[in-house]
Amino acid sequence: MNIREYMTGLGRQARQAGRRMSRAETGNKNRALLEIAAQIEKQRDFLAEQNRQDLQAGRKNGLDAALLDRLELTPGRIDAMLEGLEQVAALADPVGGISDLCYRPSGIQVGRMRMPLGVVGIIYESRPNVTVDAAALCLKSGNACILRGGSEALRSNQAIASCISEGLQAAGLPVEAVQVVATTERAAVGELITMNDYVDVIIPRGGKGLIERITREASIAVIKHLDGICHVYIDDKADPDKAVNIAYNAKTHRYGVCNAMETLLVAEGIAARVLPELAEKYRQAGVELRGCLKTCALLTGCKRATEQDWQTEYLAPVLSIRIVDDLDAALQHIARYSSAHTESIVTEDYSRARRFLREVDSSSVMVNASTRFADGFEYGLGAEIGISTDKLHARGPVGLEGLTTVKFVVLGDGQIRR
Amino acid sequence: MNIREYMTGLGRQARQAGRRMSRAETGNKNRALLEIAAQIEKQRDFLAEQNRQDLQAGRKNGLDAALLDRLELTPGRIDAMLEGLEQVAALADPVGGISDLCYRPSGIQVGRMRMPLGVVGIIYESRPNVTVDAAALCLKSGNACILRGGSEALRSNQAIASCISEGLQAAGLPVEAVQVVATTERAAVGELITMNDYVDVIIPRGGKGLIERITREASIAVIKHLDGICHVYIDDKADPDKAVNIAYNAKTHRYGVCNAMETLLVAEGIAARVLPELAEKYRQAGVELRGCLKTCALLTGCKRATEQDWQTEYLAPVLSIRIVDDLDAALQHIARYSSAHTESIVTEDYSRARRFLREVDSSSVMVNASTRFADGFEYGLGAEIGISTDKLHARGPVGLEGLTTVKFVVLGDGQIRR
Repeated sequence: MNIREYMTGLGRQARQAGRRMSRAETGNKNRALLEIAAQIEKQRDFLAEQNRQDLQAGRKNGLDAALLDRLELTPGRIDAMLEGLEQVAALADPVGGISDLCYRPSGIQVGRMRMPLGVVGIIYESRPNVTVDAAALCLKSGNACILRGGSEALRSNQAIASCISEGLQAAGLPVEAVQVVATTERAAVGELITMNDYVDVIIPRGGKGLIERITREASIAVIKHLDGICHVYIDDKADPDKAVNIAYNAKTHRYGVCNAMETLLVAEGIAARVLPELAEKYRQAGVELRGCLKTCALLTGCKRATEQDWQTEYLAPVLSIRIVDDLDAALQHIARYSSAHTESIVTEDYSRARRFLREVDSSSVMVNASTRFADGFEYGLGAEIGISTDKLHARGPVGLEGLTTVKFVVLGDGQIRR
Repeated sequence: MNIREYMTGLGRQARQAGRRMSRAETGNKNRALLEIAAQIEKQRDFLAEQNRQDLQAGRKNGLDAALLDRLELTPGRIDAMLEGLEQVAALADPVGGISDLCYRPSGIQVGRMRMPLGVVGIIYESRPNVTVDAAALCLKSGNACILRGGSEALRSNQAIASCISEGLQAAGLPVEAVQVVATTERAAVGELITMNDYVDVIIPRGGKGLIERITREASIAVIKHLDGICHVYIDDKADPDKAVNIAYNAKTHRYGVCNAMETLLVAEGIAARVLPELAEKYRQAGVELRGCLKTCALLTGCKRATEQDWQTEYLAPVLSIRIVDDLDAALQHIARYSSAHTESIVTEDYSRARRFLREVDSSSVMVNASTRFADGFEYGLGAEIGISTDKLHARGPVGLEGLTTVKFVVLGDGQIRR
């Protein structure tokens, strides 16, 4: 197989399908989503069998337990895929929506119409459920997509692809609107991220290594999400109960997620009031603490944090803690070490909350809430295809809107420029 | 001078100034804009003198007449700079505005706060007025900027830079918020477009060659504007008077601008009714016509258009004309040849207008209006720093909003994830 020709073929088909998808009616797009769900339901046994073969091959190839776990399509995960499709079908269609339409002094009306981006390339690892989730969001937002999953999930992804294809066909939409790359050759990724004529945006989903490599090598714009080094700052005007609850929840609700807190900042004036209680709770949950000098003086058994700790996304039951003088010192620490994902302040002080909201330059900035809320579902976007820590185009959780662009529309009655 | 060190120094200062600018009060930013205007007014003679020296050197170096014209700071152009500053001061401040704030089922409130991008790098040619226009928009949107003008305008730009610096100082804002690169070394551009740590977006303004080179070499995101191959389609359900007025205005109002029409598409059913009248008007204005076979059969003295003509942005009194079967044929021509800048349909047919608006994939799509309206002032953006024909981040005329991003803000009362 000539990889370049194969990928270019996918690209050309995607571009054509994208044009048709951009004017597809909302009803047809929703019908396709529900038909895909119906196909997956019908093909449950086949999906499970293909997935079993992937798992078997994975074990033989020595994949580690975490990867095998992500690869597995349990009945519960298949149910979640079906639920996801129904949820996306129920979301409002962003395409064609016109905002801010108003009359100008010249007599023309000017507004902005939301339109699909065109063709979205998505590169992801192991989890086969991404195939359905990503396809659903691209489909609903009127885009065509080219999906490149991990080689370890090839059979599972191909089985899901056939369900998607049947669903599109049943709704009268072009089957090339969702194409799953059928080769495990790594060169396919290299082609995908440089087909500027056929692909409008690349979304990598996976580990930092994958995302960095793709960003470096892509000539197409990338919506990317690197680290989530999230901070909670407990101000000395915080309500201590809220502070303890939020700091505990932000660290321990789930460890391996990008919106988990990795560093806790505590104002010196409240440290003695909240840290011992928090430390006790963390210890019971098995969280290892690494603190600054003052933290270690306050908490027995706390390891000294190194410069490296402030820069680390643990994704594990480990937390670094720093006692700071005040809000200014907290803002400085965040400006220096944050990955611009999510930061939260706990305070009852109005002016400090206002300053924190304005001055912290992260994709999500919170007052008195757990960083774990930084999520497309929690924000009401319906679903998310990723979380962008970039500033251009999309920032924060990326839902349907992040897969669209706007064009200006002008309605006139014969107006000319004078 | 070590160019890398010099540019890195500018970058570091811009990053710091950007942080201060992002929280600058609206009143201070407006004061700075008006102080800059006052300085320019005060330094009129000095500006004129420095500009005279640039012009003299330009003539000695054999710059062509068009370039010399753009380089000249006439009293009228200085007046326009002052007016521009006052207009930007009068615009609403986008920074800190919160939209879509609403309560979620969890009890948190989620909204989006508009924030500056950070540091904007602008690369432009000859016109020294861009120095003030670009600086004003960046300043008002809370960004720091690094401006790199053409070497032929160095003295003029430095004189303007000193006025800007005085204005910033008078308003208590960091003078490093607007820095004009003081070297004519071309290596400075190479540095500017690859300082990813210090610059968030690059905006090139100038000829296609400049923009293509910068896009190719930049590692930072570029807001770019390449060709403006704009189309007007006269539908057979068009009002003939509106059709003639719009097609005449779109071509002849100004020739050297990106929103001028370059190709006129006419439905076969109305061609005989409108084209002879239009051709007569064009001839009187000195516009050379190049038509398809059918057009040439209808209009005496019309040259045959080649394939190359459909792909050309003339920026001159030349127009290509094609008679097409119907709306579908027009949409096909546009999909193939348009540069995605601006297209307009002239029709009284509701359904065709509706289709054109939805299906044409350009940054501006119009019904019964001259393409010349595609402009930041005409759209009510107040001013524009460029017109983006890209789809991501900013599309169409880019005003203050295009120089900003949004972050999610979450207001809670102690909420944690369950």
